[in-house]
Amino acid sequence: MFKNILIVGCGLIGSSILRGSINKKISKNIYVFEKSKKNTSFVKKIDKKIKFLNRIDHKVSDMDLIVLSTHMSQYNNIVKKLQRYISSKSLITDTASTKRNIENLIKRNKKLKKIFIPSHPIAGSEVSGPEFGNKDLFKDKWCIILKKDSYSRKNIKRIEKFWKKLGSKTIFMNAIDHDKIFSITSHLPHLIAYNLVKTAIDFQKKNKQNIIKYSAGGLRDFSRTAASNEIMWRDIFFSNKDNVINSINIFIKNLNNFKKFIKNENNKNILKILKNSKKVRKQIIDLKQDISKPNFGRDLF
Amino acid sequence: MFKNILIVGCGLIGSSILRGSINKKISKNIYVFEKSKKNTSFVKKIDKKIKFLNRIDHKVSDMDLIVLSTHMSQYNNIVKKLQRYISSKSLITDTASTKRNIENLIKRNKKLKKIFIPSHPIAGSEVSGPEFGNKDLFKDKWCIILKKDSYSRKNIKRIEKFWKKLGSKTIFMNAIDHDKIFSITSHLPHLIAYNLVKTAIDFQKKNKQNIIKYSAGGLRDFSRTAASNEIMWRDIFFSNKDNVINSINIFIKNLNNFKKFIKNENNKNILKILKNSKKVRKQIIDLKQDISKPNFGRDLF
Repeated sequence: MFKNILIVGCGLIGSSILRGSINKKISKNIYVFEKSKKNTSFVKKIDKKIKFLNRIDHKVSDMDLIVLSTHMSQYNNIVKKLQRYISSKSLITDTASTKRNIENLIKRNKKLKKIFIPSHPIAGSEVSGPEFGNKDLFKDKWCIILKKDSYSRKNIKRIEKFWKKLGSKTIFMNAIDHDKIFSITSHLPHLIAYNLVKTAIDFQKKNKQNIIKYSAGGLRDFSRTAASNEIMWRDIFFSNKDNVINSINIFIKNLNNFKKFIKNENNKNILKILKNSKKVRKQIIDLKQDISKPNFGRDLF
Repeated sequence: MFKNILIVGCGLIGSSILRGSINKKISKNIYVFEKSKKNTSFVKKIDKKIKFLNRIDHKVSDMDLIVLSTHMSQYNNIVKKLQRYISSKSLITDTASTKRNIENLIKRNKKLKKIFIPSHPIAGSEVSGPEFGNKDLFKDKWCIILKKDSYSRKNIKRIEKFWKKLGSKTIFMNAIDHDKIFSITSHLPHLIAYNLVKTAIDFQKKNKQNIIKYSAGGLRDFSRTAASNEIMWRDIFFSNKDNVINSINIFIKNLNNFKKFIKNENNKNILKILKNSKKVRKQIIDLKQDISKPNFGRDLF
C-alpha cells in the first residue's frame, strides 16, 4: 500500500499503528521518529526491520505517509520541521483527540492543505507507552476522519483505506461536530473521573480515614479512567476548552437538579433519570461498544 | 453453624447468600421469603432443599438467623411483621447500603435492639435478580458490620462468623462513619454516572446526533455504573441525602476549580490533579480492589 511510512511518536497509539502496519504489510519500510530513549529501546525489540530517524530532515521527503502520534502539544514544533522537507506527494495524518486545533494548524501551514488529512482513532486506555501497544488495538473501533472541501478527495480515500487495513470502522465528520461530541462522550467523563478521585483524596485528608480500600462500591471504575496519561489529557482539556467548559456547565446543572430531587424525595423524577440510563447502557452493548458481562467480567479473572 | 436461616428477599444479594450458605453448609435448613413470582420460580431451581415461606408468621420464631436483603424501602414493613413473631434467641442482619436509617429502625423496635446486627457487604454490580447470584459473590470482599455499645457482643461475633464463612473480609464501623465514607466511594460515583448519562441523552436530543456509538472514549464505563437497579439507588440517595448532598457540593466545587484551571491553562494545578489520581489507581490495585489489566481486560474477551 505504501513504500515508506514514518510514525512520529511511538507510545501506545504509535506502536499499535506500527505493529498493525507490520502485521498487515501496509508498507515496505517503516520508519519511527521517537525522542524517548526508553521508548526507542522498547520499539527496537518489536521487529528488526523497523528503521529509525534521529531527526526530522531531508529523509522525510521520501515518506508516502507520515502519522503523528506524539502528544498534541508537540505537533506545532514537529509540523514546522516537517513542512521544510515534506514532498507534495506525501500524505500526513494524525491521531489527536481534538480536531479544531489540528485544522487550525493546517491552515497556518499552507504546504499541508492538500496532504494533511486529520484522523482520530477511538482506541485508548489508561496505560501508555509502546509496551502496551497491540496490533489489534484499532480492530472494530471507530476511527473518525475529517472531511473538508479543501482536502484532497483522493487523499481522504487513501487515509480511509489505511485505517480500514488496521481494522477500524471509519466515519467522516467535521472538526466542529467532532470536538462537541467528544467533549461529552470522552472529555467530560475523564475530567469527572479525575475530579471524583480528587474529591475522595480531599475527604481522606480531612477525615484522616483510609476510604480508598472501600472503592469497590463504585470509585474503582472511575479510578481506571482517572489513571490516564496526564500530558495527553491536559492537552485535550486545553485545546477543547470551550466545549469542555460548556459540558461541565450542563453537567453541573443536572447535578443541581438531582440534588433538589433528592432533597424533596421526588420519586418520579429520580426514577426517570435512573431508568433512562439503563436504556443507554443497553444501546451501548447492542452497538458493541462494551461487553455485557456484569462488572466487566472482572469477577471472572 | 445454624439450624434455620431465613433469607428475606432473594435478588442478586439474597440469592448469593443463599448459594454461599448452601455451599458452605452454614445452616441445616434454609428458608426464603420472596414476593416476586418470577424470582421465586428461579430460586426453586437452585436447590431442591430450599424451603419457602409464603408469609411472615409464627414460623419466624424458629429461625436462628434472618437476613434482610430486599430493597431498603421495604424494611419498615417487614420489620414490623417480624417483631411480632421473632424470638429473642434469633439473630437478624441486613445488607442495606446505608446504615443510619437501619440504626433508627432498630431504635424504633425495642425487641430488635440486642438481636439485630446491621451489616453491609460491598459486593454489587449493575445487574440484579437471582439469576445473577453467585456463591462466591462475597469472597475476598469487604463486609462492614456495625458496632455499638447497645448491641450484644456475642451476636456481633456470630454475624462476623457468618460473613467470614461466606468468604468476606469483615470490618467494624459506626453508622455515621459508614454513611459518610460510602457517600464518597459509592453513592457519589453512582449519581455522577447517572447524571453523566443524562447529560449525554440531553446532548443527543438537542443536537439530533447519535453520540452513544462513540462511547468507547469514556462514557461506556459510566454507563455500566448507571445501569444499576433504580429502586435500590433511589432508596440509597433518599436515605443518605445529607451526606450525598454534601458530597455533591464538594464535587461541584472541585469541578468549578477545574474549569477555572482549564480556562487559564493553569498547567501546574491541572497536572497535579491528574498525577495524583494515578497514585490512587495504584493504591486501589495494590489493595486488590480492582484488577490491573488495561481497560479491565475487556479487549481480551
